[in-house]
Amino acid sequence: MTRPLPRITRTTTVARTRIFRVEEVDLTFPNGVQCTFERLRRPPRGAVMIVAVTEHQQVLMIREYAMGFERYELTLPKGAIDEGESPLEAAQRELQEECGMGARELIPLCRLSLAPSYMDHFMHVVIARDLYPASRQGDEPEPLALETHSLKDIEEIIEEADIHEGRVIAALYRTQSWLARHSQG
Amino acid sequence: MTRPLPRITRTTTVARTRIFRVEEVDLTFPNGVQCTFERLRRPPRGAVMIVAVTEHQQVLMIREYAMGFERYELTLPKGAIDEGESPLEAAQRELQEECGMGARELIPLCRLSLAPSYMDHFMHVVIARDLYPASRQGDEPEPLALETHSLKDIEEIIEEADIHEGRVIAALYRTQSWLARHSQG
Repeated sequence: MTRPLPRITRTTTVARTRIFRVEEVDLTFPNGVQCTFERLRRPPRGAVMIVAVTEHQQVLMIREYAMGFERYELTLPKGAIDEGESPLEAAQRELQEECGMGARELIPLCRLSLAPSYMDHFMHVVIARDLYPASRQGDEPEPLALETHSLKDIEEIIEEADIHEGRVIAALYRTQSWLARHSQG
Repeated sequence: MTRPLPRITRTTTVARTRIFRVEEVDLTFPNGVQCTFERLRRPPRGAVMIVAVTEHQQVLMIREYAMGFERYELTLPKGAIDEGESPLEAAQRELQEECGMGARELIPLCRLSLAPSYMDHFMHVVIARDLYPASRQGDEPEPLALETHSLKDIEEIIEEADIHEGRVIAALYRTQSWLARHSQG
């Protein structure tokens, strides 16, 4: 698109903690309107989320403590990309740390963002197939409970386990769609 | 589940800006491991996202400037719930402000979260049907470009418009699934 972008006239870091950095940004929109927005800056290398699918079209999920909601939640394995790692290398490592499995096939599926209007965070979603047992010690405070669920009825998984994380739901549906389009192979 | 939760031993606000508040939380996990996590606290009332569907199964989408990525993005109408508003009232208002349409039918579909491991943000997703022209002045810095897309091929919308927001993708798929289950009505 050739639509002109708002002009950024000032960017200032207004808060910084161990893991968060907040910026204040002054903007002038193409119509002349001036605004000040805040945005949260992401960690330098982004993150990965892994949809590991067994030969029986089951997906590996974990129950992990969610600090935001103070409860255990069913989710997909994921984690930050370490320095020097590619997204696929990070996916292989996280899968081994969180699920005790390695994958002979890793397929980059898509990237998912959080809240583009005030965050620049993104996560690489990677499909993992041809799995084999392979565990590696991670930095989890406790062992994660591993579960497998059928990818055939995503609505059922979501409703039974009360899954509400947008990225997890998006990754499950997009994987289902990808597998449907690539199952003739 | 009867699984014991980690014990929170201290919660301190470590940063506060106009729209963000960061907390530091000390935890003791059931196995005795102690951790300090950070989390971002949400605005008090949460937000709404509206999937407005026409009688021809087209969904209303807008192109809006995304401060996180410094570009215009195709997204669903959404916004914060105002004081004293219910989620459905906020959905009706945002739809009129951002799309110039009202809805005679509003159906609460689900709630979506961002990153449960370090945020407690959630958004109510509302399906809007039986639409009629009705516009209201909002607080947008510029008029939003309105587009309609067929709900039949979500993968096509996502790929053509490079949609990456997890919540938008999740809301489109869950709406498609809801409509498929309720189309006999």
